[in-house]
Amino acid sequence: MPAPCAWHDRGVTLQDSPFLRACRRLPVDRTPVWYMRQAGRSLPEYRRVRADVPMLEACARPDMIVEITMQPVRRHGVDAAIYFSDIVVPLKAIGLDLDIKSGVGPVVADPIRDADGIKRLRELEPDDVSFVTEAVGTLVGELGPTPLIGFAGAPFTLASYLIEGGPSKNHERTKALMYGEPELWNDLMRRLSVITLEFLKVQVAAGAGAVQLFDSWVGALSAEDYRASVLPHTAWIFERLGELDVPRIHFGVGTGELLSLLSEAGADVVGVDWRVPLDKAAQRVQPATALQGNLDPAALFAPWEVVAERARDVLTRGRAAEGHIFNLGHGVLPNTDPDMLTRLTEFVHEESQT
Amino acid sequence: MPAPCAWHDRGVTLQDSPFLRACRRLPVDRTPVWYMRQAGRSLPEYRRVRADVPMLEACARPDMIVEITMQPVRRHGVDAAIYFSDIVVPLKAIGLDLDIKSGVGPVVADPIRDADGIKRLRELEPDDVSFVTEAVGTLVGELGPTPLIGFAGAPFTLASYLIEGGPSKNHERTKALMYGEPELWNDLMRRLSVITLEFLKVQVAAGAGAVQLFDSWVGALSAEDYRASVLPHTAWIFERLGELDVPRIHFGVGTGELLSLLSEAGADVVGVDWRVPLDKAAQRVQPATALQGNLDPAALFAPWEVVAERARDVLTRGRAAEGHIFNLGHGVLPNTDPDMLTRLTEFVHEESQT
Repeated sequence: MPAPCAWHDRGVTLQDSPFLRACRRLPVDRTPVWYMRQAGRSLPEYRRVRADVPMLEACARPDMIVEITMQPVRRHGVDAAIYFSDIVVPLKAIGLDLDIKSGVGPVVADPIRDADGIKRLRELEPDDVSFVTEAVGTLVGELGPTPLIGFAGAPFTLASYLIEGGPSKNHERTKALMYGEPELWNDLMRRLSVITLEFLKVQVAAGAGAVQLFDSWVGALSAEDYRASVLPHTAWIFERLGELDVPRIHFGVGTGELLSLLSEAGADVVGVDWRVPLDKAAQRVQPATALQGNLDPAALFAPWEVVAERARDVLTRGRAAEGHIFNLGHGVLPNTDPDMLTRLTEFVHEESQT
Repeated sequence: MPAPCAWHDRGVTLQDSPFLRACRRLPVDRTPVWYMRQAGRSLPEYRRVRADVPMLEACARPDMIVEITMQPVRRHGVDAAIYFSDIVVPLKAIGLDLDIKSGVGPVVADPIRDADGIKRLRELEPDDVSFVTEAVGTLVGELGPTPLIGFAGAPFTLASYLIEGGPSKNHERTKALMYGEPELWNDLMRRLSVITLEFLKVQVAAGAGAVQLFDSWVGALSAEDYRASVLPHTAWIFERLGELDVPRIHFGVGTGELLSLLSEAGADVVGVDWRVPLDKAAQRVQPATALQGNLDPAALFAPWEVVAERARDVLTRGRAAEGHIFNLGHGVLPNTDPDMLTRLTEFVHEESQT
């Protein structure tokens, strides 16, 4: 009898993990849990390792990526790790002059607002992000049967940063371009889609078991604008990701009006913020879509009894979905007490046990 | 025959204004238009008069209030004036130590987070805001048949400023209090409601023909939380305002999930942001509710043809409502070209003429 193949063993156990099963709408013996921004400022061990390392340096160093990605898995016992990165990492990797300013966010030295600017967006080559391949390789070894979720920002949100030159409340230049110069807009979105797809493919090739496409700011659009100017591009990314056979999660904030379109774009799992109860969200997405979410991250600042009651409500409503991955309705807030998250993870596991 | 009574004449003409008729869901010969933040930084004449005058001083000087309120009426020919103020004005008037910092927003020196803090919220007396009475009196004289809309911030948004100590992205302390200490929360909301009601009553007593209650940040809440923790308070305000027989407008941003509840609270007119098309919004609000909105303010940065096409779409969809007041889906953005607003006003008037 040949010796068992370690990789294959891992593959079998991995595919059997509650997280990947829930993404695929298969029965699970407990609801899987992870938290957006679980790797981040809420953890003292994160603040320690990041103390002297700027964000974009941390995102390009395999040792930092591995350590930071692993921290919440070790501490909270969550059912999935999320690859530590920032949405602008692939843009930095193709040579754009941008930085992440503490307390501000990504800042682009020379915003992109015309055809010449758009031409600066060359394709991303795997060699541009060899640190990703290295970090993911190490991570999947350390994680064993716990899946790693690949991470990328979606084209609309990336476009907004590039056009506005930094974080924007009203996205006025972005929308002016989108509404007023649709050809230029589509060229920009196509290039960003190619980069985004490649960034996710590198992560999957190295062992990521699922991917999440974050469109942080897409909730600023009406459904009609999303359908006309964004959906074709996210649909293109999701279609090509489909060839890789890993679950595709899609998330944005304030997307109550867009949930149907986010799943129409081709997501297997739609992340829902805290504004729409999961039983309502289940009615809005396409059939054969799992849901992820959606406890209000601010609820974690209330006493434990309140958190428990609200988490129980999320679990109950989540049963209306074809598959449910427990998460917050947005990223972990920096001042969150990490013990609250550990306790919440245990609570969800116990409450949902079948 | 007695000489005609000037006040009565004004009253008749005023009640016949397209704006007040649309609020009351009566037929109009053209769709009325006004813009949230029409009095503000988009106008060079506003920047001129405000150059050396801090915001809270401007809001307490009748000459400034009158001038700033009148500027957009003169320039754009809009169908209603909105009383120039800031949501924290009534809080300043009862003696709270707060200021408006340029580029930041309202900042509260000593945030309110417990029972002792809440006790500092005494009732507002008309004498605390005699400048309001004076300014409104002058304004209604100058405005003639053009209605003046009274202005106040709603209790949830005020509570958030008081609890967080300034503008907040996640409202975590606010929600922690709301979720975790409901009695304290309700005491705070009751006191803020009393203050808000009085602030609006003073404006109506002096001649305001309608009122708008701005709940800028209420879109951060789920429908269930709004119903449990906010609706009883806004409903109380609207019920008492009902005795004054002026149309009551209610507006918040990102309120797609809340539109039904915003009208259930007792608003005659519900303002809709740009995310929900007016024909859909019409299905969500209670019967006998007019709608206000909802061109994306960022659309004004696109070429005129795009603006016109989108404005026409808003008018078309607005026909599904029982009454429609044209507006933007949020306040005028500071960099907006004021000529665009003038042209838009004319366009809406012409397009909607019957």
